[in-house]
Amino acid sequence: MTPRVMFLNGPNANLYGLDRNGTYGTQSFDSIRQSCQTRAESLGMQLDLRQSNHEGVLVDWIQEARLSYDAIIINAAGLSYRSIPLLDALLAFEGPIVEVHMSNIWKREPFRQHSMISQAATGVIAGLGVVGYLQALEAVPQLLATKEA
Amino acid sequence: MTPRVMFLNGPNANLYGLDRNGTYGTQSFDSIRQSCQTRAESLGMQLDLRQSNHEGVLVDWIQEARLSYDAIIINAAGLSYRSIPLLDALLAFEGPIVEVHMSNIWKREPFRQHSMISQAATGVIAGLGVVGYLQALEAVPQLLATKEA
Amino acid sequence: MTPRVMFLNGPNANLYGLDRNGTYGTQSFDSIRQSCQTRAESLGMQLDLRQSNHEGVLVDWIQEARLSYDAIIINAAGLSYRSIPLLDALLAFEGPIVEVHMSNIWKREPFRQHSMISQAATGVIAGLGVVGYLQALEAVPQLLATKEA
Amino acid sequence: MTPRVMFLNGPNANLYGLDRNGTYGTQSFDSIRQSCQTRAESLGMQLDLRQSNHEGVLVDWIQEARLSYDAIIINAAGLSYRSIPLLDALLAFEGPIVEVHMSNIWKREPFRQHSMISQAATGVIAGLGVVGYLQALEAVPQLLATKEA
Amino acid sequence: MTPRVMFLNGPNANLYGLDRNGTYGTQSFDSIRQSCQTRAESLGMQLDLRQSNHEGVLVDWIQEARLSYDAIIINAAGLSYRSIPLLDALLAFEGPIVEVHMSNIWKREPFRQHSMISQAATGVIAGLGVVGYLQALEAVPQLLATKEA
Amino acid sequence: MTPRVMFLNGPNANLYGLDRNGTYGTQSFDSIRQSCQTRAESLGMQLDLRQSNHEGVLVDWIQEARLSYDAIIINAAGLSYRSIPLLDALLAFEGPIVEVHMSNIWKREPFRQHSMISQAATGVIAGLGVVGYLQALEAVPQLLATKEA
Amino acid sequence: MTPRVMFLNGPNANLYGLDRNGTYGTQSFDSIRQSCQTRAESLGMQLDLRQSNHEGVLVDWIQEARLSYDAIIINAAGLSYRSIPLLDALLAFEGPIVEVHMSNIWKREPFRQHSMISQAATGVIAGLGVVGYLQALEAVPQLLATKEA
Amino acid sequence: MTPRVMFLNGPNANLYGLDRNGTYGTQSFDSIRQSCQTRAESLGMQLDLRQSNHEGVLVDWIQEARLSYDAIIINAAGLSYRSIPLLDALLAFEGPIVEVHMSNIWKREPFRQHSMISQAATGVIAGLGVVGYLQALEAVPQLLATKEA
Amino acid sequence: MTPRVMFLNGPNANLYGLDRNGTYGTQSFDSIRQSCQTRAESLGMQLDLRQSNHEGVLVDWIQEARLSYDAIIINAAGLSYRSIPLLDALLAFEGPIVEVHMSNIWKREPFRQHSMISQAATGVIAGLGVVGYLQALEAVPQLLATKEA
Amino acid sequence: MTPRVMFLNGPNANLYGLDRNGTYGTQSFDSIRQSCQTRAESLGMQLDLRQSNHEGVLVDWIQEARLSYDAIIINAAGLSYRSIPLLDALLAFEGPIVEVHMSNIWKREPFRQHSMISQAATGVIAGLGVVGYLQALEAVPQLLATKEA
Amino acid sequence: MTPRVMFLNGPNANLYGLDRNGTYGTQSFDSIRQSCQTRAESLGMQLDLRQSNHEGVLVDWIQEARLSYDAIIINAAGLSYRSIPLLDALLAFEGPIVEVHMSNIWKREPFRQHSMISQAATGVIAGLGVVGYLQALEAVPQLLATKEA
Amino acid sequence: MTPRVMFLNGPNANLYGLDRNGTYGTQSFDSIRQSCQTRAESLGMQLDLRQSNHEGVLVDWIQEARLSYDAIIINAAGLSYRSIPLLDALLAFEGPIVEVHMSNIWKREPFRQHSMISQAATGVIAGLGVVGYLQALEAVPQLLATKEA
Repeated sequence: MTPRVMFLNGPNANLYGLDRNGTYGTQSFDSIRQSCQTRAESLGMQLDLRQSNHEGVLVDWIQEARLSYDAIIINAAGLSYRSIPLLDALLAFEGPIVEVHMSNIWKREPFRQHSMISQAATGVIAGLGVVGYLQALEAVPQLLATKEA
Repeated sequence: MTPRVMFLNGPNANLYGLDRNGTYGTQSFDSIRQSCQTRAESLGMQLDLRQSNHEGVLVDWIQEARLSYDAIIINAAGLSYRSIPLLDALLAFEGPIVEVHMSNIWKREPFRQHSMISQAATGVIAGLGVVGYLQALEAVPQLLATKEA
Repeated sequence: MTPRVMFLNGPNANLYGLDRNGTYGTQSFDSIRQSCQTRAESLGMQLDLRQSNHEGVLVDWIQEARLSYDAIIINAAGLSYRSIPLLDALLAFEGPIVEVHMSNIWKREPFRQHSMISQAATGVIAGLGVVGYLQALEAVPQLLATKEA
Repeated sequence: MTPRVMFLNGPNANLYGLDRNGTYGTQSFDSIRQSCQTRAESLGMQLDLRQSNHEGVLVDWIQEARLSYDAIIINAAGLSYRSIPLLDALLAFEGPIVEVHMSNIWKREPFRQHSMISQAATGVIAGLGVVGYLQALEAVPQLLATKEA
Repeated sequence: MTPRVMFLNGPNANLYGLDRNGTYGTQSFDSIRQSCQTRAESLGMQLDLRQSNHEGVLVDWIQEARLSYDAIIINAAGLSYRSIPLLDALLAFEGPIVEVHMSNIWKREPFRQHSMISQAATGVIAGLGVVGYLQALEAVPQLLATKEA
Repeated sequence: MTPRVMFLNGPNANLYGLDRNGTYGTQSFDSIRQSCQTRAESLGMQLDLRQSNHEGVLVDWIQEARLSYDAIIINAAGLSYRSIPLLDALLAFEGPIVEVHMSNIWKREPFRQHSMISQAATGVIAGLGVVGYLQALEAVPQLLATKEA
Repeated sequence: MTPRVMFLNGPNANLYGLDRNGTYGTQSFDSIRQSCQTRAESLGMQLDLRQSNHEGVLVDWIQEARLSYDAIIINAAGLSYRSIPLLDALLAFEGPIVEVHMSNIWKREPFRQHSMISQAATGVIAGLGVVGYLQALEAVPQLLATKEA
Repeated sequence: MTPRVMFLNGPNANLYGLDRNGTYGTQSFDSIRQSCQTRAESLGMQLDLRQSNHEGVLVDWIQEARLSYDAIIINAAGLSYRSIPLLDALLAFEGPIVEVHMSNIWKREPFRQHSMISQAATGVIAGLGVVGYLQALEAVPQLLATKEA
Repeated sequence: MTPRVMFLNGPNANLYGLDRNGTYGTQSFDSIRQSCQTRAESLGMQLDLRQSNHEGVLVDWIQEARLSYDAIIINAAGLSYRSIPLLDALLAFEGPIVEVHMSNIWKREPFRQHSMISQAATGVIAGLGVVGYLQALEAVPQLLATKEA
Repeated sequence: MTPRVMFLNGPNANLYGLDRNGTYGTQSFDSIRQSCQTRAESLGMQLDLRQSNHEGVLVDWIQEARLSYDAIIINAAGLSYRSIPLLDALLAFEGPIVEVHMSNIWKREPFRQHSMISQAATGVIAGLGVVGYLQALEAVPQLLATKEA
Repeated sequence: MTPRVMFLNGPNANLYGLDRNGTYGTQSFDSIRQSCQTRAESLGMQLDLRQSNHEGVLVDWIQEARLSYDAIIINAAGLSYRSIPLLDALLAFEGPIVEVHMSNIWKREPFRQHSMISQAATGVIAGLGVVGYLQALEAVPQLLATKEA
Repeated sequence: MTPRVMFLNGPNANLYGLDRNGTYGTQSFDSIRQSCQTRAESLGMQLDLRQSNHEGVLVDWIQEARLSYDAIIINAAGLSYRSIPLLDALLAFEGPIVEVHMSNIWKREPFRQHSMISQAATGVIAGLGVVGYLQALEAVPQLLATKEA
């Protein structure tokens, strides 16, 4: 059966590519979305990539994923470092969870150097830009296979 | 030209696969090495995977990489969290650096939750086991391409 | 006149009873709601039990309670520990406020061991499961009586 | 069989009701004791309410409870925040333990905002005055029933 | 061309003037809004004053301002001290940003003494009540002039 | 009667405008003084703007203001963050006090991010350069009016 | 009427004068007691000087003082730095309280540099040896006079 | 002359052997006492093993040891980590002091990882169970010999 | 020979008695000075009581005392908590030093709860108002006698 | 079968006995080694006592012990407090581990008061000098017996 | 042209050589001054060595140096660790700055172990006594040469 | 007799001069070595300059210096901030020790702002580049002379 993956993007992730310092790369969010869709298809997965600036909406979506998705990929952006509701929602999800960050958060301000939600993640990929996003997708079928084994 | 990658493994990494809790997976270090060599070949890269329990040896090797390798992949294991000499050596390396950890270090003891060498890394992949090691290899040609572009 | 009580439940509280470790008991959220309604009726109170994953919605509801409810019972779940907006909204409410937690938060992770909103609560009941929820309801008429006296 | 409950009160609890600011209510300790006895009887429990200013005596009593009581209710007062001997004694008690505080300790000085013995308690009720004491009594039969079930 | 200013008000700011201690003055939020509109008009600016209890809505609005407003004035209220999403949204705004607080936050509780979003603000005005709000408006044309110069 | 305002400037404030990074603007201290005098006159206030590198002199002046001035404006510069004598002197002043900073201190080094004397100020204006200085002057008559009312 | 003063001495105070480093002077505890009795008599006060190694006994005694003494002098020795029960008992005493220490506690180990019970004391005298003890006695009639005035 | 050793056991030590997790071994306190007596006899020492849940009693005993014992062995249990009175009493003892802990305290909760009284001990033995208790006894004659030498 | 005592008063001490909360008593500084002079005369000492708002002046004076005074009494007021220059000057003084505070500094703000200069003082008297000032004077001859003995 | 024990000594342990303060006793390292060998023989154990200043060498040796030794005794000296590689190597060893320190580390500088490797040790003996070393040897057969039981 | 060097000495530096412990050497301040003058002459530099106990005077002097000196040497003594005004004045000086300390500050009290003004210094020499002072002078022409190059 | 000086250089010091930001100057390590040799000769000293990336090797060398060298100069580079083994080895060396750093470490990252080994150094020279290295050499004969005096 085709695995279903929910890829959640947090606050301001829709602005990626627009920052003059290139903190988040130069590829627009729409283009990133397209790259991910293409890769997911080639991996035989159904991808549902969403973005919201609202913590509550992200929690709602994770609860939705809990019922009908096989894996979660999440870049919670500015909510990564403080949001216990996101952490709790992810802790209630039973499938694999890959946390991604476009930038290397450990080279940035101190308040970005510890992601609270990593406690709920299977693994983390950070600092590799869109390459990391695509690798998160590629990791999913392997993690699902491990789990089933 | 064939890119050269040095893949450094820190203290006790040679014991991976032997831990009864499976913290570091169930695949032996030799088997991991073999998987990496195979993947590197298929990616057209020359891989030099080394392991040492000595901080000084790892620094020597990074200095060697500085002169004749294109990229570094490093799992500094127990030295990740405290070693300024490793950090300094990596800061002097000009090519891409991918830091990997087999386990998700943010689910472990507090003293393992901040890798000092991440400050020198291009990106970090953690918690994905051997899958993450292979993805680190796959990221290298893409990071080299970006750099050249 | 029949006292009106708003009972607010925060993020992921709707998942209670589903956790395999039984952190939040084994009774489903709907069943908890039913138990509370029954008890409120027997106490001669009008109960309005709501749940949301959105901090903003919870603040909106507390502001609503400020205008037309006599007491608040609140389990802010993961928002308890960090949310200044919830604290500020509760500080503006003049009736009694009972904070409840199904689990004993002081036996859990360090980040769950200090509820910010306790500063605005009249009292706190934690760790007694659904028993504690019902006791919160029972406390309301007594607190209202004290206030009127 | 009639359940036996030991209700321990720590240092200075015998002064409750005498504080001009009303921090601990206006009901004298003897009156509180009487209210508790009455409620315990109506609940079919045998209540043994004691008070001491001596940590060692409280530890002795908890060890006594360990041998011949079914539940403990405890307001350790000023010892709550620092006493490891009390914590250790409570950890060795196998029945339900309800920690109570007459005042809302989280509205008070910082050194009163973390009760060390909560780590050993089943649940905590604070800030509800004598109402909370009586609810602690009411919780006991329900906690004992849960345990037996 | 008429400059456009978005003036954002965070959680519970709509209750200003209702607090019996007068922490936030005695002027109602509607009256404050009216004062601001009048002043903006006299300064030849188009003012868009909004209030929300939802962090996500505030982020959405800042993103909207990014596209079609010249300056932002913001009192993020209880979100000022913790919200990285708000900070990130403001960091992506290129025009002047004036942060305002009705009360002097440094005379209040410790958790209100460091506004996280000040890192993204051009300047901060606090403790001057409605006078400070109007001065924020007056500062905008001067800051825009400086920027253009 | 013409209100009298003492405007105190702390250590090194006389160098403003000379910093190549423009931290403190490009307007010289004499020019700032002139702008302030002009504005004060137009506001019908008598301005006494002083500068000293000596904490003790500043304390002496605040004690002088205590006897014969109606309001204080102060940029204590490097003394803002540590000086308890300045704080104590200001606490003994009964009229309005406006603290100003030319730069946004919360964007600077950690040791500049908490002004000790804000505890004694009515309000604070920071980061708006000379505009902020002039707004401090403009706030004075309004604060005096509020006080008299 | 002759004022009654209770002078409490905490753990190990009975060993004073025996320490080879002279931390607590060279005068034996019995001799100190005699000096205090003589001084109290000459001041027309009834002195009741007691010593105990038991926190609970000291609390009992303070509660006794609460009922029939006019002032308390206390050297709580090693209990000064941690005992909340002593603090609470002293807070419930309405007459003047003088805390004394034979040695200058701020020249000693860090854990002796903040006496918790100073929060309940009228004043503190430390480092003056037996001179300080006698001055504590002398201060009592003056503090009682102030209170009565 | 036969050396006299006082072996002090703190709060709850009398429960050793009863803990289902075996934290403190499986040998009952009476059996431990018997093993120690036997070993002391074979070493030609007079052993006085006592246990109390009261800090004050333990201080009294140490003061008694000061007058008529040659060495102290102490497991202060839950009082080890916080009790300055115990520390002070031990500091006044001139013979050798061996601190023992049945469990390895550095593998336990953070609040058990620093024994305050180690500052007064000659040496510490922890984690070796009853073996460690017996070794403490065996160390005494050697420490006394060193001292006399 | 008549002993010479320098009594130094730090910043804002000249305002004592003027504070409406009575933090520093109700006796004016001139009146305090007179009380001290009278007491010093009756004790046969030459008193030199000075006050300055300037740290440097106070250091100059302590250096002067070093050459021609027998004892120092000092209330460094707001400089007590931070001034290393004052500490160093006092450390170079060889006679007795009595630190005084009119108020009980441990009942006040956290930043006033540790006087840095106590490290250089013989003893400290705080919270006893003018009584404490006079007791400081009385202690001097006794401290000088001890030193000579 | 004769049990094999590896006794590891860390950096500078070879200098023991040479320190003029006698921190590490007065017995030379060679003499200590000899004492240990003699005791091991009398206990019927094969002892392999090694010393190195290199963390990496110590890790190599622990890995060697992992394959062919029954127990480890270790004084990691200056590496005890920081070395995660040593900790990880010891965690991978399955037999008993006794950590020893010649001096009482809790009487020394703060940075020596928490040994990181105690987390991996069965037990710890410190402050007893060479006596403690020999007791570590004596503990080994008893710990091995317990394990086999 | 002859380079001009201002050598500033902070509070109590004029007492150097008088301390019985020899913390600051045994050479008097006048003698140190003479040694420096002689060395400066031999280096062809004009030396202006000053000392003050007043922070404000030191700031005034640094501002004077800013206008007409080529280099600054500074031992700010007790002001080194806290003075932001000194730091700010030094940051505004464009020539080389050598910070000196006669003693090794890192062997002293914790509050002397971080000099705030080092952030503004070119280099630091500490612990070498007068030798270090003379080396600071010798460094100046070399630093000036580097700068000009 | 010709004094012998060992000059130790820590990890990555061999890369000095290669950093594009010039953190460590522009002179290569070989050139620095040559400058030092020349200066040592002119000072009549025998210089032994070594570099290693291995902590253990540096400790071995310090132990060697202990036996046959008169002074140590050391730039422990990245090991300065954490290495207790280096500190211990230096503490066992009886001659003068000069610690050097090419860069001003107090202008760099927080983790480089406290050198642990300064506790063992006679003096420290930092931030003066190669000039500082040569001054360290020049200081040696003067320190040796002082010691002999």
